[in-house]
Amino acid sequence: MYLKLILLLPLVHSFHVPFPLLRPSTTSLSSYKLVLLRHGESTWNNENKFTGWHDCPLSSKGVLEAQQGGTLIEEAGYKFDKCYTSKLQRAIKTLYLGLEFSNQLSTPVVHDYRLNERHYGGLQGLDKQQTVDKYGKDQVMIWRRSYDIPPPECDKDSPEWPGNDEKYKDVDPSMLPFSESLKSTKERFMPLWNDVIVPEIKDGKNLLIAAHGNTLRALVMHLDNIPEDTITGLNIPTGVPLVYELDENMKPIEMEGRIEPLSGRYLGDLEEIKGRIGAVAAQTK
Amino acid sequence: MYLKLILLLPLVHSFHVPFPLLRPSTTSLSSYKLVLLRHGESTWNNENKFTGWHDCPLSSKGVLEAQQGGTLIEEAGYKFDKCYTSKLQRAIKTLYLGLEFSNQLSTPVVHDYRLNERHYGGLQGLDKQQTVDKYGKDQVMIWRRSYDIPPPECDKDSPEWPGNDEKYKDVDPSMLPFSESLKSTKERFMPLWNDVIVPEIKDGKNLLIAAHGNTLRALVMHLDNIPEDTITGLNIPTGVPLVYELDENMKPIEMEGRIEPLSGRYLGDLEEIKGRIGAVAAQTK
Repeated sequence: MYLKLILLLPLVHSFHVPFPLLRPSTTSLSSYKLVLLRHGESTWNNENKFTGWHDCPLSSKGVLEAQQGGTLIEEAGYKFDKCYTSKLQRAIKTLYLGLEFSNQLSTPVVHDYRLNERHYGGLQGLDKQQTVDKYGKDQVMIWRRSYDIPPPECDKDSPEWPGNDEKYKDVDPSMLPFSESLKSTKERFMPLWNDVIVPEIKDGKNLLIAAHGNTLRALVMHLDNIPEDTITGLNIPTGVPLVYELDENMKPIEMEGRIEPLSGRYLGDLEEIKGRIGAVAAQTK
Repeated sequence: MYLKLILLLPLVHSFHVPFPLLRPSTTSLSSYKLVLLRHGESTWNNENKFTGWHDCPLSSKGVLEAQQGGTLIEEAGYKFDKCYTSKLQRAIKTLYLGLEFSNQLSTPVVHDYRLNERHYGGLQGLDKQQTVDKYGKDQVMIWRRSYDIPPPECDKDSPEWPGNDEKYKDVDPSMLPFSESLKSTKERFMPLWNDVIVPEIKDGKNLLIAAHGNTLRALVMHLDNIPEDTITGLNIPTGVPLVYELDENMKPIEMEGRIEPLSGRYLGDLEEIKGRIGAVAAQTK
């Protein structure tokens, strides 16, 4: 036993410093775990409408996805010290079901608008097909898949502008968007990551972040240094926990079973998850 | 319009100072609202077991009660700045459903063990009828209905002692009970009320407290100055929001439709609620 420790420790250490990406996940001596969870299907995903910050509920399929996500977390044995989510009910309900189904409903939760979905501006509430008919397929694809081109802004007196929603009464109105690209969504999210979440991870807290397609894209883009033209086509499936292992510099360690370009690993059946990622890509057409 | 104001304001003011209890609730110039909610039926209520801090889930009836409580809150138009609940899932799930059904799921929530149910000591998990058979009806009634006599303590190595439950890992173990009377439950809860909740109410925050039969008994006993021999027989129905209006000294203002000895008013059908309070009393026999 003592001999083993003496033999193994220098080996782990030598892996650790010069080849951090080769360090096997089973020897996570000074690594941190972080779990990401995209909300389940919402009623508007289902109706093929642009949603953004519009606060629609989960569909019944989305409820099931969130419950299954919680069961996967329970089976993998993850316990959280704290959770972060957005101010939108589809992410919050997904989180609450995930915590319930992993038997940790009393975990503290922070609801922060900086984790909200990308704001879809004047397109929020519009049917995706009708938007294509109105603006043309090419323009809609630019809004959906470009990194830094936001859709048209919503009006300041529109119910879609968050300054008119009491949920955001404690937020400086100058911080509330009229429309966002993925780039501006990332710029909104990163201060929460750098100033609030990273210090807690480094403090040893096990965190779960339950959020949206684009805020999670922003995070994995940052963690895995994914290029702009790749991230806009990256699909993160709904309701599937995505586990990251981070070193002391918050750099991700490549996990066994990862699906490129992510270093993290989805919990659950990887073949089924690959199928779902493909299905989301097809829906965009 | 101006004349009406001039005539009414001094009247309200003269009511306000010497006869606070006569001040009609419609003229709440400097009063605070507080909403209390007892969790819905749990699976163990249903199985007629002593529950206490045992963390059993809501029954399907309890889920429905919590959803109906949320709908009543929505219909009455209450919006909360913050919510307080216990570390036990039946209260948390009731709160989360209540917030979902009143369309305010993003409201911040504090989970505090001081709102937990009375700890039932060595009786936790025992069938109520079997306990009567073992200890005799008179002894069980003393444990259930006396103000200051706790049931036998649980063992320190028992799963029923909260020091063995990771949910309470951040709590000083010397604060964790082995058994509690209503009196000791109240002593556990009052520091949370005085040091944390009251300052927030005075700061103008609209609060919802989702808790348990005995922590809510402790609170209304304090607010309404209810005697020891009355409070032990007071039934607070599950899943029914109870609204209190408090003056600047945190004294309750008697509300129209109140059911004595409470100054607060239940939301919903008062005749039906009176029936439910009677039904709980009958169950004790």
